[in-house]
Amino acid sequence: MNRKILLKSRPNGMPDAKNFEITETTVSDPKEGELLLKALYISVDPYMRGRMSDAKSYAQPFEIGKPMQGGIVARVMESRADNFKAGDVVLGMLDWQEVQTAPASVVNKIEEGMAPLSYYLGILGMPGLTAYFGLLDIGKPQQGETVVVSGAAGAVGTVVCQIAKIKGCRVVGIAGTDEKLAYLKNELGVDEVINYHSTPDMQKAISQACPDGVDVYFDNVGGEISDAVMMALNKYARVVICGQISLYNVTEMPMGPRLQPLILKRSVLMQGFIVSNYAERFTEAAQQLGKWVAEGRLKYEETIVEGFEKLPQTFLGLFEGKNTGKYLVKVAE
Amino acid sequence: MNRKILLKSRPNGMPDAKNFEITETTVSDPKEGELLLKALYISVDPYMRGRMSDAKSYAQPFEIGKPMQGGIVARVMESRADNFKAGDVVLGMLDWQEVQTAPASVVNKIEEGMAPLSYYLGILGMPGLTAYFGLLDIGKPQQGETVVVSGAAGAVGTVVCQIAKIKGCRVVGIAGTDEKLAYLKNELGVDEVINYHSTPDMQKAISQACPDGVDVYFDNVGGEISDAVMMALNKYARVVICGQISLYNVTEMPMGPRLQPLILKRSVLMQGFIVSNYAERFTEAAQQLGKWVAEGRLKYEETIVEGFEKLPQTFLGLFEGKNTGKYLVKVAE
Repeated sequence: MNRKILLKSRPNGMPDAKNFEITETTVSDPKEGELLLKALYISVDPYMRGRMSDAKSYAQPFEIGKPMQGGIVARVMESRADNFKAGDVVLGMLDWQEVQTAPASVVNKIEEGMAPLSYYLGILGMPGLTAYFGLLDIGKPQQGETVVVSGAAGAVGTVVCQIAKIKGCRVVGIAGTDEKLAYLKNELGVDEVINYHSTPDMQKAISQACPDGVDVYFDNVGGEISDAVMMALNKYARVVICGQISLYNVTEMPMGPRLQPLILKRSVLMQGFIVSNYAERFTEAAQQLGKWVAEGRLKYEETIVEGFEKLPQTFLGLFEGKNTGKYLVKVAE
Repeated sequence: MNRKILLKSRPNGMPDAKNFEITETTVSDPKEGELLLKALYISVDPYMRGRMSDAKSYAQPFEIGKPMQGGIVARVMESRADNFKAGDVVLGMLDWQEVQTAPASVVNKIEEGMAPLSYYLGILGMPGLTAYFGLLDIGKPQQGETVVVSGAAGAVGTVVCQIAKIKGCRVVGIAGTDEKLAYLKNELGVDEVINYHSTPDMQKAISQACPDGVDVYFDNVGGEISDAVMMALNKYARVVICGQISLYNVTEMPMGPRLQPLILKRSVLMQGFIVSNYAERFTEAAQQLGKWVAEGRLKYEETIVEGFEKLPQTFLGLFEGKNTGKYLVKVAE
């Protein structure tokens, strides 16, 4: 039995299980230049919500009736491409399908044995690279500065917090459960943590956690949490717009305070990005991240769910904050 | 008779004549290191609205019962400071007062005969430098890109439009009267112009004027005009937050669409600044601006009102869009 998961309908607001369909499928033999691939680990990421809509965005929308796609670590079962052989492990944007054929050109080989294979969907993959470029290239944290991270316990946030500590910053993490806060503080060495669910006055909590103001705000969530952080920005602060998960499921244009007067008065830089903007520098960044992991300076947490059929509910769990660290599904050994 | 103009009360919302008081005053003889100065030209600028409030901003608030202050070109009547002599012309942030004594350290000498003296309050002064650094350092316009300028007919906007043309860009100017639009198009060579007062659908007008989207948005006004421009931004667009005149007189936190999702999806950079951030490079910029003026590549318009007592109403006129180009008051020959 070979299964795939399709986008059955586009969500209006928060997606749910009915937007997905799991069906059996066949797989064609690989043609010249193609690989037969078995999925091992499949990534779920907040940005995929955008591809479920047909609004113009940085990535093509998924098509209705076609498989969902995402980052997948897969093993080569049969190769008709140069430079690949059966048994190799590869990483690529592939269909949510247990076994599939794909052009060799859409995957990259992973050297087995350097790190757990799942790490290539997280700290050594897209979320790790996102944290690296967003914080270092846009945030430009300087020793002694205060860095605030929203979505701090997520796949990107945990890496941002730790790189900011490596750079000698005071780090304040915002997350939604006390377990996540404890993890950030006790395991990752984050200086101050704020639970946005149980804190009645976020603006006050941020001023207290940031007595010298905020120099870098790495924003994964947007909305009212971000409004509160913005009020504490220092002159020349940098705001890295990495994610806006609190707004991904809204159905109308979200309204909020106009921030330009504050951006003007305090000479703030606000910049959005996606990791593919930095594609030319992926090797440099992956090497640095790998070095920090090997040295024990970057800790890494995963929440791994087992079973291909769990993909939709795991993806949906992202919007309920169910994961600490990287959230992914293990499909096969 | 020597007159000064005081801040009598802080405005709540739009300022009016009652916030000012004109009184007679005496002037003390200059002490060692001081100059006796006669004001020739006095600048009115939108940023001064911020100093009339006591909210935290980039400049100190004016004090109630003390004179308003602003950029003034003045002639030295008596000098007790090295390097200055009677008859010299100077530029500085001085009191709204016909004749005053001031420390020589707060003014800079202007070389007479290079350009009309009033230019040092405009194209060769703060507004010109603001246009130069905001457009070139933050906007970074590239040949063939589309640059949209709001407040395009103002002291800063007119210079921005022309520098963008010098850099080979397609320039779209937004202003509030047909006279201003004609000036922008016919005199300054702006490619397309939009009257925000008479245009019912700004978003549509901007798409039509910018068939290739917007690469640089130089924002002097904020509010709904800016919302409309933001929707047309291209990937990697730069938004220069230079002024927010439409919001300077609001009394509550202004609300608008949350822009971070768009900033994220299109990898936009938005940055606020004030000209003093670039103080170390003023000489470089003033020389380049002066060269462009001398070559006839930068045209310059002033709206000059005569009479010291006209200062309050001239300042208030900024918020009604009464000026084309730099707005200032001539006080003496």
